[in-house]
Amino acid sequence: MAMARTGRRPGKGDTRGQVLTAARAEFAARGYRGATVRGIAAKAEVDPALVHHYFGTKRDLFVETIQLPFDPDKVAAAAVDGDPAAAGERIVRVLLGVWATDEGRALMQSLLRSAVTDDELLALLREFMFETVVLPIATAVATDNVPLRANLPASQVIGLAFIRHVAEVEPLASAEIETVVSAVAPTLQRYLTGELGSS
Amino acid sequence: MAMARTGRRPGKGDTRGQVLTAARAEFAARGYRGATVRGIAAKAEVDPALVHHYFGTKRDLFVETIQLPFDPDKVAAAAVDGDPAAAGERIVRVLLGVWATDEGRALMQSLLRSAVTDDELLALLREFMFETVVLPIATAVATDNVPLRANLPASQVIGLAFIRHVAEVEPLASAEIETVVSAVAPTLQRYLTGELGSS
Repeated sequence: MAMARTGRRPGKGDTRGQVLTAARAEFAARGYRGATVRGIAAKAEVDPALVHHYFGTKRDLFVETIQLPFDPDKVAAAAVDGDPAAAGERIVRVLLGVWATDEGRALMQSLLRSAVTDDELLALLREFMFETVVLPIATAVATDNVPLRANLPASQVIGLAFIRHVAEVEPLASAEIETVVSAVAPTLQRYLTGELGSS
Repeated sequence: MAMARTGRRPGKGDTRGQVLTAARAEFAARGYRGATVRGIAAKAEVDPALVHHYFGTKRDLFVETIQLPFDPDKVAAAAVDGDPAAAGERIVRVLLGVWATDEGRALMQSLLRSAVTDDELLALLREFMFETVVLPIATAVATDNVPLRANLPASQVIGLAFIRHVAEVEPLASAEIETVVSAVAPTLQRYLTGELGSS
């Protein structure tokens, strides 16, 4: 799950970093809805006005905390660039690579757990993920039915994340990357460019 | 998501019903971990000892509250009985039928939301779902790699439930049953009986 990396503004690095660290901890502990700018400021030992000055609203701050350690445009490009007939495989490889890192896996788990229990956050993440990553990929790869061809791979990807890294069901939880790629890539490929009309 | 229907013991129907209604409300509001037998008893206006007498432990009571309005053996049979080459389609049709009912959809949403945020409940549900429904179906339909061929359809089914009925992403949220069957049945079929070894 790739979220936007906005440019880090230079200067005041320590204060910004303190606020972000405090915000990540508060969002993880209380969820998006439960966390407050006041609580985050208190944890970071700064004035709430400073939090608003640096980050804007709680929503802006949340978006800032859920950045992945890579550029979502590059992830989308990695999925899109190349033969459209192999896009499914590239997408699975990129995702499995992200989830194989402690940071990427923890963020995915946190997003999934937060989204499912908070409707406001769910709407925010749904919009964010589809606008930023899912729809651009589907638009670039699919030649018809783009909205449905965006939904279907997302459903398989989220379920895979759930079984492999949240419920941790074996053997999929410990399966080699090549095993998962072989199993799931053809599914994503059919959803993006294959036949959907006959059952 | 089908959970076991145990036989309803006759008699004392009102008290049992009151406790079950209270338990469903408490599990929905506080989650499995947060709900207590004491709190459920108070809500039902009965003695906690009576709750234990009728239902046993909190876990037993929870299992009782998450029963679906149908027999999971019949659901598994509906998926298994018939041509193995059409099992994927039968599974999708059974699930979409359950989720099309208010009760079935609400239960699925509640289970998914509870499981993701409570590790103890997640382990319980994972064991329950795989032992009761997923593995029996995969065992009956697949001829090799049964554990993996059980995991993979589960991943697609959970992701479909999430996109269609939790995140409610369009167009999949409002898609006609036949559209979803056409799109997803071939995926389940390949996971159960198709080629998994080449990507």
